[in-house]
Amino acid sequence: MMKKKINLNADMGESFGSWVMGSDDAMLAIINSANLACGFHAGDPLVMLKTIQSAKEHGVSIGAHPSYPDLQGFGRRAMQMSDAELYACVQYQISALAGMASANQHEIKHVKPHGALNNAACIRADIAQTIVRAIADFDSQLILLAPALSELYHAGQAAGLQVVAEIFADRNYEDDGQLVSRQKPHALIHSEEASWQHVQRMLEAGGIVSYSGAVLPCPIGSICVHGDGANAVQMAAYLRRELQMAGYELCTLKQLD
Amino acid sequence: MMKKKINLNADMGESFGSWVMGSDDAMLAIINSANLACGFHAGDPLVMLKTIQSAKEHGVSIGAHPSYPDLQGFGRRAMQMSDAELYACVQYQISALAGMASANQHEIKHVKPHGALNNAACIRADIAQTIVRAIADFDSQLILLAPALSELYHAGQAAGLQVVAEIFADRNYEDDGQLVSRQKPHALIHSEEASWQHVQRMLEAGGIVSYSGAVLPCPIGSICVHGDGANAVQMAAYLRRELQMAGYELCTLKQLD
Amino acid sequence: MMKKKINLNADMGESFGSWVMGSDDAMLAIINSANLACGFHAGDPLVMLKTIQSAKEHGVSIGAHPSYPDLQGFGRRAMQMSDAELYACVQYQISALAGMASANQHEIKHVKPHGALNNAACIRADIAQTIVRAIADFDSQLILLAPALSELYHAGQAAGLQVVAEIFADRNYEDDGQLVSRQKPHALIHSEEASWQHVQRMLEAGGIVSYSGAVLPCPIGSICVHGDGANAVQMAAYLRRELQMAGYELCTLKQLD
Amino acid sequence: MMKKKINLNADMGESFGSWVMGSDDAMLAIINSANLACGFHAGDPLVMLKTIQSAKEHGVSIGAHPSYPDLQGFGRRAMQMSDAELYACVQYQISALAGMASANQHEIKHVKPHGALNNAACIRADIAQTIVRAIADFDSQLILLAPALSELYHAGQAAGLQVVAEIFADRNYEDDGQLVSRQKPHALIHSEEASWQHVQRMLEAGGIVSYSGAVLPCPIGSICVHGDGANAVQMAAYLRRELQMAGYELCTLKQLD
Repeated sequence: MMKKKINLNADMGESFGSWVMGSDDAMLAIINSANLACGFHAGDPLVMLKTIQSAKEHGVSIGAHPSYPDLQGFGRRAMQMSDAELYACVQYQISALAGMASANQHEIKHVKPHGALNNAACIRADIAQTIVRAIADFDSQLILLAPALSELYHAGQAAGLQVVAEIFADRNYEDDGQLVSRQKPHALIHSEEASWQHVQRMLEAGGIVSYSGAVLPCPIGSICVHGDGANAVQMAAYLRRELQMAGYELCTLKQLD
Repeated sequence: MMKKKINLNADMGESFGSWVMGSDDAMLAIINSANLACGFHAGDPLVMLKTIQSAKEHGVSIGAHPSYPDLQGFGRRAMQMSDAELYACVQYQISALAGMASANQHEIKHVKPHGALNNAACIRADIAQTIVRAIADFDSQLILLAPALSELYHAGQAAGLQVVAEIFADRNYEDDGQLVSRQKPHALIHSEEASWQHVQRMLEAGGIVSYSGAVLPCPIGSICVHGDGANAVQMAAYLRRELQMAGYELCTLKQLD
Repeated sequence: MMKKKINLNADMGESFGSWVMGSDDAMLAIINSANLACGFHAGDPLVMLKTIQSAKEHGVSIGAHPSYPDLQGFGRRAMQMSDAELYACVQYQISALAGMASANQHEIKHVKPHGALNNAACIRADIAQTIVRAIADFDSQLILLAPALSELYHAGQAAGLQVVAEIFADRNYEDDGQLVSRQKPHALIHSEEASWQHVQRMLEAGGIVSYSGAVLPCPIGSICVHGDGANAVQMAAYLRRELQMAGYELCTLKQLD
Repeated sequence: MMKKKINLNADMGESFGSWVMGSDDAMLAIINSANLACGFHAGDPLVMLKTIQSAKEHGVSIGAHPSYPDLQGFGRRAMQMSDAELYACVQYQISALAGMASANQHEIKHVKPHGALNNAACIRADIAQTIVRAIADFDSQLILLAPALSELYHAGQAAGLQVVAEIFADRNYEDDGQLVSRQKPHALIHSEEASWQHVQRMLEAGGIVSYSGAVLPCPIGSICVHGDGANAVQMAAYLRRELQMAGYELCTLKQLD
């Protein structure tokens, strides 16, 4: 019998200059796909280069993690940008990472928007479409990694991109499939066990399971884990182990097909 | 009889956000190769995109014009960077422009460092070699546009890159082939006629002709004209006319071969 | 009989590094109060210093023109910031300009938020109050220059600041007192004569006069003119002449009292 | 008998946005004077505000720690700037911090240049004088905290500023009084005991004691300790204890007089 396939992804390369963030090396031993910051919210060129090389050594697939231009806010502050500006900013970042990757014997396979840009693309079709156009014009073979049930997911499919839907291992969902806002007390799931149960329930249900228990059927190809935070690495490792024990085969986004 | 070939190049896309610099459209009707800012000294992503498109419409070949990260100083301030930082910064900028160009039906053909970085690469072999390595690792088919007689020129040749030597139409030279410093009164050549005589003398001599009259033989493939300044467009147009009347065929860097 | 007093203000010091914007010297001969960029949307430290000195030479009163941190967007893109971030960003900018002014024998007398930040402060009381708190904590003697009928105007008054209401010489108004959006064809007033008629009508009516002719009574202390654009200086000079011929005394914000 | 006085200073507020650096709270319980980043190499406005407030709560005196504009390089990369640019950049940073401090019930008492700017000011009189002029024009009562035997120390004295000479607890010195370059293996002193012996020897000798044992007499008012690094807090606490046991009274820079 063929194993069920699943992908683990995490944001990475989010240091900047002298400032370090996350436990990239530890996470690279756990995940299958890394979303690399491209200089707009984190990740200066040298950080990008080192992260490309480190991912390559660990055999981890990489993708671009473009953001609004906002180092001070780590790309987490919503910004108003024209379609033309957004198209150019997203394509600039993807291009920069893709070129550096290919110059250093690796290659990017996917794109996943970061932070406030990702949030905006989940609920606004125009922003989602602009991002998708920037990706497709650059390389229509790139995989779009998008939150399940989001406008971004739909925009990617409509444009003919391969789209993989992701769920978040440590975030609860509203009944409409959106993440519970970080303003609310139950936004985050803190323990390893609860996180695994959350993931397991969604994989078995074949869709998002909201905090209230509602099931929203949707394909799930990837699980996003976080690399920063006190016990992030431990949680990711726990999740990986449980997935394997439950019979899942961990694979890259390309291998999901 | 075959015409002698020569290339005209100019820096371009050096606006940023709401700030406009240069007369790009007018210059695109005159030159053969445009050096496009890549966001570090000028040229935000949207400016880059528009300049790529405009160059394409004018049939002008484009290249990357990477710089130290210094918007405030327009890349004209010397900066100390480690080899690793410089390699990454140069490759990031080339990658960003190259990717955006190919996503928009154009492609970059050359690289020319900007401002203080170019100055440093003229006299320091280590900096020149790092830049050359960043280029060659990205795409060894890219042409390096380098000042005649510079360390950068030699580093490019040593690495097997196609290198085109450029002279400056409006700058006088010292007896060692370096530019007369802008601190000195005779650094710049102001009139159209004097600029053309300066260029003509060097092309006929087959090398740099210094302010004092010394001749330093070297290949000359391209002439750099400037797009900013009061009568820049007029000077460039004058030079182009005189070159054509003197029997030169204006061509892209690739066509020089 | 005492002359009616009015103030003319304009944004200034919006160059950055090698990029020039506006006709500051020409405008300084026309206006009474200059709003100086503080480095976040324009105006690097050297531009600030030169603009302080130039305003002093022209006898023009100065104020801080704080913005969202957004050079690329010239502070015209809405950004989401926490109250704490906004408070700190506004106070940082006011402090920087105020300190440089006092170190160079001038002093700031007022604050006027820039662009998207000003727009947000017109309609959102929380943002208006945060800005007002940042000003008042720094120096409660500073005058707040705020659009007539705005939340910012009210927040300043509620906090006990001296507030001067400004109208825009070249912008039409909606019936609720807000500016007609730049998206609409009738947002801007283009001719000198129409601009002066617009201003005159509001000064005589003692309030905002909307595009449809509705009158919204409010105090008017200052008229904002623009320093960039093709005929900006000419429009400002025309307005100044007409105001003087109509019997108005042009004065600084402090002198309005 | 009057106790001998000494000051302990450390760099602080060097986080930026989401990136954390150093153990500021722990260090604030140990030192007397904190050098606060002003946004050019670290320390965004909100970090500055929080560090001002935290220093105030700990009763720690604060000063400005201005830098070259270089977030990516943490102000550690030498940059070429004109005198006018440097003057403006230094004064901008001092002004920003001073204004925020006074708006929040604290006040700055000193200035200490950061990183590559400090290094340049140690050996180049012109740079030292420009920094001193930027300080003195802003507030001639500010104390300049400068490396012992440096050009910066002399420039401050020549301009009539109160200057306090500092030594580094964990850095060895050359025979000319300059720090041993970080390129050399013996640049740093790693153990608590060795660091204390190093400091003690200099305090007792009344001057810099070089790695080879040469004594260069000079006044010593302050000892710089570092807040980042694995055992930084422990080293600083050890040094403080030893100083107190050796009969030194720890005090602010003002109290040294």
